[in-house]
Amino acid sequence: MRDPSQRVLGQRALVTGGTGFIGRNLVRHLVDAGCAVHMLLRPNSPGTDNPPANVHIHLYRGETSDVVEAVERSKPDVVFHLASLFLAQHTTDQIVPMIQANILLGTQLLEAMACAGVKSLINTGTSWQYFHGNSYRPVNLYASTKQAFEDILAYYADAAGIRAINLCLFDSYGPGDTRKKLLRILLDSLETDAEPQMSPGDQVLDLAHVDDICSAFLHAARLLSDPEQPLVSSYAVSGGQRQSLREIVAILEKAAGRTLRINWGATPYRPREVMQLWDGPALPGWQPRITLAEGFKALLHERSL
Amino acid sequence: MRDPSQRVLGQRALVTGGTGFIGRNLVRHLVDAGCAVHMLLRPNSPGTDNPPANVHIHLYRGETSDVVEAVERSKPDVVFHLASLFLAQHTTDQIVPMIQANILLGTQLLEAMACAGVKSLINTGTSWQYFHGNSYRPVNLYASTKQAFEDILAYYADAAGIRAINLCLFDSYGPGDTRKKLLRILLDSLETDAEPQMSPGDQVLDLAHVDDICSAFLHAARLLSDPEQPLVSSYAVSGGQRQSLREIVAILEKAAGRTLRINWGATPYRPREVMQLWDGPALPGWQPRITLAEGFKALLHERSL
Repeated sequence: MRDPSQRVLGQRALVTGGTGFIGRNLVRHLVDAGCAVHMLLRPNSPGTDNPPANVHIHLYRGETSDVVEAVERSKPDVVFHLASLFLAQHTTDQIVPMIQANILLGTQLLEAMACAGVKSLINTGTSWQYFHGNSYRPVNLYASTKQAFEDILAYYADAAGIRAINLCLFDSYGPGDTRKKLLRILLDSLETDAEPQMSPGDQVLDLAHVDDICSAFLHAARLLSDPEQPLVSSYAVSGGQRQSLREIVAILEKAAGRTLRINWGATPYRPREVMQLWDGPALPGWQPRITLAEGFKALLHERSL
Repeated sequence: MRDPSQRVLGQRALVTGGTGFIGRNLVRHLVDAGCAVHMLLRPNSPGTDNPPANVHIHLYRGETSDVVEAVERSKPDVVFHLASLFLAQHTTDQIVPMIQANILLGTQLLEAMACAGVKSLINTGTSWQYFHGNSYRPVNLYASTKQAFEDILAYYADAAGIRAINLCLFDSYGPGDTRKKLLRILLDSLETDAEPQMSPGDQVLDLAHVDDICSAFLHAARLLSDPEQPLVSSYAVSGGQRQSLREIVAILEKAAGRTLRINWGATPYRPREVMQLWDGPALPGWQPRITLAEGFKALLHERSL
């Protein structure tokens, strides 16, 4: 196999979920790489009115014909499917939006690709499809909808010749991340001196910097243009450092030069908390470049901490 | 394992898809077995106004709360999930109804079961999930949506303790079957002397009589009450005789005492036509009782042929 970084990325990319944290970073990486980027967005998404240069918006109102039209008009060399409804724990009233976001939209996208003869898909999976082992066992309903979509992808791969790479993500972080996740809570507490209530903290995390994740997406798209690549494959996108929650706090404390006040064990572990991470196959030829220490320093700098 | 036919079936059953060909026969079998049958039906389904004795109707308008309410009110000992949108070949405008019927409704049902503490599900799969082999390879989009639902079931089994048997069906037939399938075409041609246009006819079929299929559903429900039964398992429901399309026509001709005029080879095989059938595990302790010769004679008698 030739070095995938030397392969052509393609002129046009279609991105779903392009307004999410990873998605908007990916759009920037693609534009920087010289791609014309087409985004499939819901009408109420932020940024539909004034897209940046070389970014084109196609609206998705829930109809299959919206997606067919977007794929026909954008004629993408590769589709990056990041749109999803992420819920670590769901409630009964979230069943309908979760099936629509995580299965229906993806199926509409595959159908549209089959109609238009578009063959290359980079899909976003989750390590939560592999709870405490290396075969399918979903941590939560979210993970099971991701697996369900891969089964539908298997049909389109076999019957319509669509080629795909599933990138299974662990945790992500980076600048401009407004999601209420671990690092946001820790950084807030550095700012306010509040004492976060935490679980005992022995669960292992794999935090990848969003720039590394984006480079994995671009790398996968280049890899997919290799005819020796299997029709469908799944790879883990690891940040390269697996640490317990307590160890991650220690790295942040070292970067900040201060200790954090944390009430360890104040809350129980989540039901079906992932204590050990999936040990899936690495994306061939790609590796992360940003260490947690470097990434955390940039976050602290961003918030003047 | 004790003889499953000696096990208790339960007092109350909830059935989805109870107005379909197999579903309405299953409802009759359940009533005959002494069950109170609750049906989850769309408001426009036939028979919602005047259900037979011991049959109760719950309406499904597409909302998760409809299903939660139906399961709470019916408190079923076992749920039989037969509702699906069956399409051998789909068109682009059928993506939304297919995901809704084959994945969303089933997920709503599992969620409702988890909420109400209902633990037993008999689900309906298709041999088309296993195209020319014994591992998952979907013949069509329909089969991939069935597999996708099983992925979601895996989550509810693991996290909510729902126990399930997937019954994978091949082809079905029986009295009162108005579906435009093979036997209907053949019987029509016996009546009208029309010459059906057929494929070359070498594909192998496994036709099961609907009464045998219903006995498999009841048997599976009894089997599931055995604590030694795995949390989730899948079995093939074979009619017991595998024949090529040409051989099936010969059996019907013998039963009718007449030859059929058939234009063999006038149409091509379907794309991804199944030439060899899945050789899946048989439902333990169950076997079909009605031969094709007997079943066909009853069909001919029904139509005075």
